[in-house]
Amino acid sequence: MIDLQFLEKLYNNDRRTVARSISIVESNNSTSAELLKEIYSKTGNAYRIGITGPPGSGKSTITNQITKLYRSQNKKIGIIAVDPTSPFTGGALLGDRVRMSEIGSDANVFIRSMATRGSLGGLSKKAIDAADVLDAAGYDIIILETVGVGQSELDIAQAADTTAVVLVPESGDAVQAMKAGLMEIADFFVVNKSDRPGSDQAVAALRTILYMRDHDANSWMPNIIKSVASENKGIEEIAAEIARHKNYLNEHALFQKKREEHTKSRIKVIVEEKLREELWSGDGGKALHTSLEKIIYGGLSPYHIAEEIIIKFKNI
Amino acid sequence: MIDLQFLEKLYNNDRRTVARSISIVESNNSTSAELLKEIYSKTGNAYRIGITGPPGSGKSTITNQITKLYRSQNKKIGIIAVDPTSPFTGGALLGDRVRMSEIGSDANVFIRSMATRGSLGGLSKKAIDAADVLDAAGYDIIILETVGVGQSELDIAQAADTTAVVLVPESGDAVQAMKAGLMEIADFFVVNKSDRPGSDQAVAALRTILYMRDHDANSWMPNIIKSVASENKGIEEIAAEIARHKNYLNEHALFQKKREEHTKSRIKVIVEEKLREELWSGDGGKALHTSLEKIIYGGLSPYHIAEEIIIKFKNI
Repeated sequence: MIDLQFLEKLYNNDRRTVARSISIVESNNSTSAELLKEIYSKTGNAYRIGITGPPGSGKSTITNQITKLYRSQNKKIGIIAVDPTSPFTGGALLGDRVRMSEIGSDANVFIRSMATRGSLGGLSKKAIDAADVLDAAGYDIIILETVGVGQSELDIAQAADTTAVVLVPESGDAVQAMKAGLMEIADFFVVNKSDRPGSDQAVAALRTILYMRDHDANSWMPNIIKSVASENKGIEEIAAEIARHKNYLNEHALFQKKREEHTKSRIKVIVEEKLREELWSGDGGKALHTSLEKIIYGGLSPYHIAEEIIIKFKNI
Repeated sequence: MIDLQFLEKLYNNDRRTVARSISIVESNNSTSAELLKEIYSKTGNAYRIGITGPPGSGKSTITNQITKLYRSQNKKIGIIAVDPTSPFTGGALLGDRVRMSEIGSDANVFIRSMATRGSLGGLSKKAIDAADVLDAAGYDIIILETVGVGQSELDIAQAADTTAVVLVPESGDAVQAMKAGLMEIADFFVVNKSDRPGSDQAVAALRTILYMRDHDANSWMPNIIKSVASENKGIEEIAAEIARHKNYLNEHALFQKKREEHTKSRIKVIVEEKLREELWSGDGGKALHTSLEKIIYGGLSPYHIAEEIIIKFKNI
């Protein structure tokens, strides 16, 4: 299935092959691992930008506008929009329709939405794998757009070279963002829809929080950009901030370090997933099936059974 | 630390000991496993109700009202409010304040909020462990309240005997709920804030979707309850629906089956978590540290390295 011809087409950005490759990666089976191994040596060239924030903050509008800006510089743009919250917000679908009409017909823009479709696990892993596919296909910039609500977003932010956290003036997000460790993932903030009341206060609140943190003169200090993405205001400033952060990473030899850290965490995810498969398809699965009797008749707790299964698995 | 005196106090619902026990469970260390093993034989008596839905749908108001109703029947109520989205919504904090003033001073109501506080993993496991603590402390009913946006909610719904999915009229959630497998976790739906426009349409849309699904005459058909929780309307109907579902589970011998399935998935979670710890603290961790050289100089991909680590781990 993954033959040289297929790979050649992928490396030449044949759209059908790119789409097919992402579907393979989404299926997350042995073909997926085979493909990802093959293409790995062709990856590492694209710059990866994470855009995260609450539903309705305008992430996809920002993504669209910045894509148009980068297109005017003749960059090829890959977009992976991950929406684990789609059960409720429906964001992915609506956003896509707007998106497709504006930039979807451009041959040098590739857009892929990944919603949950009933299976909630492993979404961030698949999104990161899909970024590898686009990277191998020669896209210069890959935008990973996520709704910031959980572990998936942190994983994806870790996979990005630069991450923007998008907020809106009225949501009082600043304080909340600090609590949830979002300060750690934001390389800069965007206060979008800043023509609404309260945007200056939101910026001031964010700034206060940022300055309260420990930092020295050399460390990166996230900026706060005001934008009205629907009117294309602030988009150049966002692009400039991405460029400034990229330079900072390069100058401080952090770019490679960041990618190495990400590679490590990626290996961990792959190992854990494979191990989990092997564990439950083998003796562990059998032990699990007989465990209930032990609990019901033997007075053991799930914690006791878990220890038994682990001891067995390690003595294979 | 976990001595007989401590356990005795927990079983007698000494509030400080209950609070302390949940903190232990939240810390998720070896003391936590020790405690959970000890108390397991005292659990299984409480009825567990899951309440999930999007932010702003009124889950905590419903929880408060139904708690007051159950209190009038002299039931002891434990509430675990899980909010993995608190980085943005701030829901947990606000909800708590209202909650505490209404029902928090009642000695037979125990409320615990679990937000992310920066560490996003394992929240559902901890919430389910905390439910065991409240169960062992003699609470008759445990309400697990979650914002329905991810894997955590599905895990928690699986841990509940009866799960209510709360929606609001205007969000067009019905169709989205179907897409995300939420139909599978809802034992019934609540359309809250049903004094707003569109509530009849929302109910009709939900009903259409429910009837479209495969079902036979014997299978459980989720009802749709309209409520205005802030005015205490529909709360008795919700309680009646919970009772109806409980009866259904008992009559069809599904109650025990559901709990057994949950116990199995819980064992899986415990095993995987422990295995992960052992994996990375031992040779796997070392292999991970040396993996980057292999990638950089050896031309290997993360997928290659992952396979190597697994082979080593299994050959211990």
